[in-house]
Amino acid sequence: MSPGIYNKPYLMTAGPTPLPPEVSQVMALPILYHRAPGFIEIYERALSGLKTVFQTGNDVLSFAASGSGALESAVANLVEAGEPAVVASAGKFGERWAELCEAYGADLTHLEFEWGTKIDPEQVDQALAGLDRPAKAVFVTYSETSTGVLHDVETLAQVARRHDTILAVDAVSAMGAVSLPQDEWGVDVVVAGSQKALMCPPGLAFASVSDRALEAASANPTGRYYFDWNKTATGQRKTPADSPFTPAVSVWRALDVALGMIETEGLDNVYSRHAALAGAARAGIAAIGLERFGPDDDRANVVTAAHLPDSIDGAGVPKLMRDGLGITVAGGQGHLKGKIVRIAHCGYYGAFDIVVALTGLEMALIELGYDCVPGTAAGAAEKVLIEAGSPEPVG
Amino acid sequence: MSPGIYNKPYLMTAGPTPLPPEVSQVMALPILYHRAPGFIEIYERALSGLKTVFQTGNDVLSFAASGSGALESAVANLVEAGEPAVVASAGKFGERWAELCEAYGADLTHLEFEWGTKIDPEQVDQALAGLDRPAKAVFVTYSETSTGVLHDVETLAQVARRHDTILAVDAVSAMGAVSLPQDEWGVDVVVAGSQKALMCPPGLAFASVSDRALEAASANPTGRYYFDWNKTATGQRKTPADSPFTPAVSVWRALDVALGMIETEGLDNVYSRHAALAGAARAGIAAIGLERFGPDDDRANVVTAAHLPDSIDGAGVPKLMRDGLGITVAGGQGHLKGKIVRIAHCGYYGAFDIVVALTGLEMALIELGYDCVPGTAAGAAEKVLIEAGSPEPVG
Repeated sequence: MSPGIYNKPYLMTAGPTPLPPEVSQVMALPILYHRAPGFIEIYERALSGLKTVFQTGNDVLSFAASGSGALESAVANLVEAGEPAVVASAGKFGERWAELCEAYGADLTHLEFEWGTKIDPEQVDQALAGLDRPAKAVFVTYSETSTGVLHDVETLAQVARRHDTILAVDAVSAMGAVSLPQDEWGVDVVVAGSQKALMCPPGLAFASVSDRALEAASANPTGRYYFDWNKTATGQRKTPADSPFTPAVSVWRALDVALGMIETEGLDNVYSRHAALAGAARAGIAAIGLERFGPDDDRANVVTAAHLPDSIDGAGVPKLMRDGLGITVAGGQGHLKGKIVRIAHCGYYGAFDIVVALTGLEMALIELGYDCVPGTAAGAAEKVLIEAGSPEPVG
Repeated sequence: MSPGIYNKPYLMTAGPTPLPPEVSQVMALPILYHRAPGFIEIYERALSGLKTVFQTGNDVLSFAASGSGALESAVANLVEAGEPAVVASAGKFGERWAELCEAYGADLTHLEFEWGTKIDPEQVDQALAGLDRPAKAVFVTYSETSTGVLHDVETLAQVARRHDTILAVDAVSAMGAVSLPQDEWGVDVVVAGSQKALMCPPGLAFASVSDRALEAASANPTGRYYFDWNKTATGQRKTPADSPFTPAVSVWRALDVALGMIETEGLDNVYSRHAALAGAARAGIAAIGLERFGPDDDRANVVTAAHLPDSIDGAGVPKLMRDGLGITVAGGQGHLKGKIVRIAHCGYYGAFDIVVALTGLEMALIELGYDCVPGTAAGAAEKVLIEAGSPEPVG
């Protein structure tokens, strides 16, 4: 296609996300014994840093696992076979909660909202009111990575409290991108993974669990071991902190550095950065006539999804961007395959990543026959970026 | 204690084990999207390399988890609440099988052998014969890391087959150190972890599962999700291979390199190297009058455990070696704390690692008041190393 000008790779997916060089390079250091003082210092500092990012006083229970392992921990600890549980979903990851609840034998009420729409808290309220016994828990998603939609967890937490049940929130892609003040909102369980806005490789899964949820887990003691919350809480609360199973020490090293970078930047600045990047992405897709997938929402700043024009082969867009231009973005999942493209900006992303993603998208669309003037998308993004704040000399 | 001469760190535990620089450095490379061709190539090559090391035609099912996650996968897939299961244990990791079976509600027969002894296959035979219904599975350990003992898995596999039940073997520390010809011996399930003789960081867990065991899992479909064998098998068997959950891509990169190194060295040479190092370690401890913990067995080549003299403060030995000399070795676990020391030689270990470990052990013992002539242990090891083969110029 070209004389090597597209051979430089750009990772622009919502997980795994690109890592800051400061983070990836510590993975190459000699391995540490997990009970040696050198590791314990890293582990305890990272556990403390996690509380800051999760905005909670809870212990953030940590597992060597994919993010789905943290979701499973919530279901395994809270769901009892034959007992009611409620899942409200509007996308692929919301549906994972339902699959998990079914695997654990819950008497499941699954409220399925259309992909790309928001969960309606009122319908969750009604579903809880209609149960003949209290639900053991309600499971929802904060940022639905498959659609880019951000759900109203603050209201959903109020609904769950009203029915004296536990709300468990999948914040795998949102954590560190969009604020989720867990304690302030009264969310009992928030789960996340290392490989998205936390700027780390995949391999660590987290569950911030309230005392109330830990007690519920204690009252339901069987059917799990590795993902048992109380086992991990007991270990993490020891002096020195001790993981019940060999921790993924390389990823902890990376996490420790990444959390330090988040602390230095400041959590509010991290959220503002994500908001500015998302705003630029939204302006860019609008400028070339693509419709945003999902409702208008200036807090949905994790991933920006756009409807692809019916006139072109939609599945060709991510393929052409990756194979032709070196830019890895995600298309749609499930029935959205070929219908949408998703531009991620959660984690280690800056202004020019959005310029690259939008320019690449535009080039792919033009290649596939879509009519638009080169530079339109990036130009619109640039205006938003300039409005977000004057550039300041770095360092 | 000294003018900085002990500030250079040596990791000599049975996991996490030290990594070859070739392995650790790839962890610092930019992260890959798990569905991009660049990762799929690594993933498929590593999945194939795992089959070689596991000496099996089975798919080696892989999870982002600690080794215990692979153990849990075996219990979660095979054990049914209320149905019989048998665990034969003689150490801390054997007991983990029993804890797991209890967590999953098995009707458990737990044969507890003294720590440091071998599981008696005849007693397992009798236990299986005495059950009123067939056991769903028998769970044992190959190399018991807490004691250094290697159990007779070949005979145990025959016993399990005779009773038409499934044998699941924990080979977490043995895999890649001591031969376990799974298919030849007819072992249905072998589990392992990345962070021991496979020379990788912790974070990947493996289960090599026979068709018979996969069918047993299919017949017992609930109570798990993340560790479900059939879900992972389905993903890995796709073209291209696809992990059902985000794989720990950095560790896969490391594993791919490590498996390449094992292939280059040759599996038989890898086992011979471990045998020579273990022989040297045994000679070293014997030369300074320490008794080997566990039976005499020249195949138990993963970790060498030694009784510590009653005359000294045993718990002080690993502490002094680590804090005073920079050498991290493991002491005893559970009731063996302060009673034994364990020298690991599984994974990326060579002749001079044994010299270092034995010299450090000797220095710590002398410091704690034990009477021995400096150089005795390393000298005895050196003789064994020389006998194991003349040194050849490298490269």
